[in-house]
Amino acid sequence: MNKTLIKLKHPPVFLSTAAVGGRKESEGPLAFAFSQICEDDRFGMDTWEKSESEMQRRALHFALSKAEMKEGEIDALFAGDLMNQCTGSAYGLLEYDIPFLGLYGACSTSVEGLLLASLCMQEGFGRCAVVTSSHFCSAERQFRLPIEYGGQRTPTAQWTVTGSGAFILDNDAAGEFSCAESCVRITEVLPGRSIDGGITDANNMGAAMAPAAVDSFTRYFEESGRSPEDFDLILTGDLGYEGSGILRELLRKRDIVLGDNYNDCGLLIYDREKQDVHAGGSGCGCAASVLAGYVIPKMESGGFRRVLAVATGALMSPSSVQQGQSIPGVAHLVCLECGGE
Amino acid sequence: MNKTLIKLKHPPVFLSTAAVGGRKESEGPLAFAFSQICEDDRFGMDTWEKSESEMQRRALHFALSKAEMKEGEIDALFAGDLMNQCTGSAYGLLEYDIPFLGLYGACSTSVEGLLLASLCMQEGFGRCAVVTSSHFCSAERQFRLPIEYGGQRTPTAQWTVTGSGAFILDNDAAGEFSCAESCVRITEVLPGRSIDGGITDANNMGAAMAPAAVDSFTRYFEESGRSPEDFDLILTGDLGYEGSGILRELLRKRDIVLGDNYNDCGLLIYDREKQDVHAGGSGCGCAASVLAGYVIPKMESGGFRRVLAVATGALMSPSSVQQGQSIPGVAHLVCLECGGE
Repeated sequence: MNKTLIKLKHPPVFLSTAAVGGRKESEGPLAFAFSQICEDDRFGMDTWEKSESEMQRRALHFALSKAEMKEGEIDALFAGDLMNQCTGSAYGLLEYDIPFLGLYGACSTSVEGLLLASLCMQEGFGRCAVVTSSHFCSAERQFRLPIEYGGQRTPTAQWTVTGSGAFILDNDAAGEFSCAESCVRITEVLPGRSIDGGITDANNMGAAMAPAAVDSFTRYFEESGRSPEDFDLILTGDLGYEGSGILRELLRKRDIVLGDNYNDCGLLIYDREKQDVHAGGSGCGCAASVLAGYVIPKMESGGFRRVLAVATGALMSPSSVQQGQSIPGVAHLVCLECGGE
Repeated sequence: MNKTLIKLKHPPVFLSTAAVGGRKESEGPLAFAFSQICEDDRFGMDTWEKSESEMQRRALHFALSKAEMKEGEIDALFAGDLMNQCTGSAYGLLEYDIPFLGLYGACSTSVEGLLLASLCMQEGFGRCAVVTSSHFCSAERQFRLPIEYGGQRTPTAQWTVTGSGAFILDNDAAGEFSCAESCVRITEVLPGRSIDGGITDANNMGAAMAPAAVDSFTRYFEESGRSPEDFDLILTGDLGYEGSGILRELLRKRDIVLGDNYNDCGLLIYDREKQDVHAGGSGCGCAASVLAGYVIPKMESGGFRRVLAVATGALMSPSSVQQGQSIPGVAHLVCLECGGE
């Protein structure tokens, strides 16, 4: 098959990032990563769906403020979420007068957006924003049971993150960041193939998504010539405890050994010992908040120099599961690096 | 605000296109446009959702066959549909071993895909496929009532097209199409902004989407310096009878007069006099089949030289409508032109 890794000729620069989150996220180890926390998870709205939209609106608002930028300076918005017909994004970002490109990659959407924005900025858009979200209560109602039912959760189940992350990217056509050692760029992208490992348990997304992550990592290390030790951090978002164990094991069979520099957004965002989240966090807002609120700011302050981020998504729906179909996964990859060009 | 029209430095070329459709589509004026028709709309499957997926699989199969190409020669698939979590695409294209980028733009998804693929092919992908679909029965069940209920339809309601269109694009990096007068290229793209005109009637999508089309046309004619007479065909997909009337009227107020060269995919695909489709066709498969099965082949055989295609989408969900929210629209634009570079 074709080479699938693309080394970007003009690696775009992150101008700013921001994340907002709910109460559970504020009780976890990454509480500091959120520009704003809403204690009752409602964000001032009267339905959970509107609360999710409001998170996207606020995340982009904070990212624009940090970059001291107005909506008119952004050429395109790449956005998505888990809601039916992606209404979290459609309604949440409606007040922004920016061309809107809707995406659906389930929990991989944040990195899918970064990947597509990067490619579209090579000879096209000058500045793009990427925004994604998930909300525990809107996701439970839609995918499982309304939270009022108090449904039981299995050990492999993940907890949908109430959060939204926003990113502002610049194509640096003017070369103004060429000497900026602290600026973070997207230097390589690799789009994921959808892979069906035969999992039919909708409460085991980690297992359903791991084979797609294996495929993307394998292609990346083969095509780039790099190895896991070349990174300060290798991050999946969000395989959780179950899925990241499977990932390590399957990669080991292909002679790719992930060391202590490997982690998962679903494991970073909550404290599994104390927070009763079973296999960890998940949702379109999981990788988005962890990247926007923690990883990229830490890169900017010199904490990491090179990060490989692979966001995974499970491409099923409640109907497809009820109709007995197994759950395909997809895993999109971006390489983030500090420094000038 | 920023300029939003992008003139592509390297206009990609359509290597092939294909459409498949159902019985109602085979009884309309564009019956000849479909590579395959399935009389019972089931495409050999036992659920409507699987039938829709199967249409996508077949549409891409025919497009690949026409281009005499294997999946390994395609760098990325851009796909979407109207189903919750876009499962029409996720399952339909699963057997293809091609990196998969999921989109959600409601009925604008086909042109959103062409637009994104074009931008990603400037310095990135060499060859891309775009596939979208809709199915009357899966859409009725999800958005309105299962067809067995025999629900009444209002005069402004549109009929969801059972169809899928697939497109194969090449970035022509080698310049092998430089002398080919008959080849069709995407030369300009303009991404749509989401616009909410305040419509709350889910049976009047044309009215909900028309303001977004007005916005995209206005920006296009302003920024390009072109006027409607410069085109052999100006096509919306799919405002239907109601929406295209509103579009003409709103544009006239801005001194943009659409002449006889204006048409709508939802009006072209069915015979409104004979086929009882009320305001015309709609759905992710409508603009896709009309462009893939009729417009681009007609351009290749010299019937049109320059076409402006604006696909519109209504970005609501059944929940957002039930919760009383009005319906935002979006309209993505591509300019298609014949000739070498």
